[in-house]
Amino acid sequence: MAALKMVQPPVSCSSSGSDCGPLVPVPKIGFVKLPSFSMGLNGSNYARLSLVQATEESNVAMTNGRAAVVSGENPPQMVTNGKAGNIVWHRSSVGKVHRQELLQQKGCVIWITGLSGSGKSTLACALCQALYSRGKLTYILDGDNVRHGLNRDLTFKAEDRAENIRRIGEVAKLFVDAGVICIASVISPYRRDRDACRALLPEGDFIEVFMDVPIEICEARDPKGLYKLARAGKIKGFTGVDDPYEPPLNCELSLPPKGNSCASPSEMAETVMSYLEEKGYLQA
Amino acid sequence: MAALKMVQPPVSCSSSGSDCGPLVPVPKIGFVKLPSFSMGLNGSNYARLSLVQATEESNVAMTNGRAAVVSGENPPQMVTNGKAGNIVWHRSSVGKVHRQELLQQKGCVIWITGLSGSGKSTLACALCQALYSRGKLTYILDGDNVRHGLNRDLTFKAEDRAENIRRIGEVAKLFVDAGVICIASVISPYRRDRDACRALLPEGDFIEVFMDVPIEICEARDPKGLYKLARAGKIKGFTGVDDPYEPPLNCELSLPPKGNSCASPSEMAETVMSYLEEKGYLQA
Repeated sequence: MAALKMVQPPVSCSSSGSDCGPLVPVPKIGFVKLPSFSMGLNGSNYARLSLVQATEESNVAMTNGRAAVVSGENPPQMVTNGKAGNIVWHRSSVGKVHRQELLQQKGCVIWITGLSGSGKSTLACALCQALYSRGKLTYILDGDNVRHGLNRDLTFKAEDRAENIRRIGEVAKLFVDAGVICIASVISPYRRDRDACRALLPEGDFIEVFMDVPIEICEARDPKGLYKLARAGKIKGFTGVDDPYEPPLNCELSLPPKGNSCASPSEMAETVMSYLEEKGYLQA
Repeated sequence: MAALKMVQPPVSCSSSGSDCGPLVPVPKIGFVKLPSFSMGLNGSNYARLSLVQATEESNVAMTNGRAAVVSGENPPQMVTNGKAGNIVWHRSSVGKVHRQELLQQKGCVIWITGLSGSGKSTLACALCQALYSRGKLTYILDGDNVRHGLNRDLTFKAEDRAENIRRIGEVAKLFVDAGVICIASVISPYRRDRDACRALLPEGDFIEVFMDVPIEICEARDPKGLYKLARAGKIKGFTGVDDPYEPPLNCELSLPPKGNSCASPSEMAETVMSYLEEKGYLQA
């Protein structure tokens, strides 16, 4: 059984003008989208800044000796970025690398996609247990649970379903940044939505696991009777029946069934664990 | 320095009909909102179920020998709950308690509220470092960073500002469930919005820290020149200038300044650390 490792606190960096006293944060670096009129940029209004000194809500971005005010929670002026108008990503002096060292693992998202009845939550559950037995911190995000809280304002119309997946992807990204192995268990039927979530994360950290179970098997299982209801027209827009499921083209792992029965949950979990081990996610 | 503790994996509970094999999840318990026509309830369409066997997307809720289909990602039928129509909170067999044991801490949110320039992010930074030096896992959510991702669709109009805070509260809740000490650093000027976030969390787990710094001091600091711009009318709706800040009435901690200068970040962090220690959040 692996032991969790305690690590040294990060070395603080000096930062002029900070009032952090002995706990001085590192300078906060970020990307800033700047209107060309203020920064004299041609052809692009994005500028990578060498240094941004920032608080959480308001910042003065310094570049080439000129300042642009960047405001997050208060309304923006001078600098805008889409709807929000805030444009600086703030970094704390305790970063992802420190959290990963603390946890002795690397943050990633295991995105389990597949039809209803394909075994996504079963795999998520088995994987969570297998990782826990190795001393690893995981968190399961699933469509249902998130729709109770964060996404309770969303309906089932097409754009809300896309927004549902987008938000799950964004939250998964935060968990990955926290160093957690985040397991997303969501049908996520559209390739475009899944790929958008993949694009949010650093290369390699989005691990797409396709539950490649034919609909015939899912429907034969139909433990909740949902397929029967969908076939009877009592559920509309049911994935695989009257709404499409687009299988991944380049997923990291595909878990096919063995004959008519699925591989056991522990076998499936082991397959994912082996992948994580091989890719170095089970150590800092 | 505290050592992180490895704990035994959770004991699996049996669950009839599960295909989890040797890794059997505990039965999933939840609240289900049921229309009275299907459940024969009078006066209320909420029923607490004794047992819900559920997958992530679709469930059959059993109560009094009758079944109601509950669907999460697929469109709902028979049972509805607000916009989403899904109504079962799924629990994994590895739960919050196990994650907390793994981390040797209790999940909570430290919600730092106050004016721009009051030192919220400075405290968040110092606290993050102090907790890290004790081997504790923290994650900072701040308004700016979240507006880059999850909340990038939101503007600064009133309802979007409320939605910004709501989502931060919901994400903080997920982090707390993950066992993480989540530090939210957001102006969050309206009492109603903060109280709504408090209501999302178990009693005690929402720790509101008010940066009780008079606007005169914040404005005298004005390190980013934002107050000057707001006074000149170049920023509209700036909290404390032409938009209200409602101080907490019953916050857990209030950090007043010492004379005209703020307590040092390490002093403020120690105040919060003492509170966490006293309330038992720094152990499982």
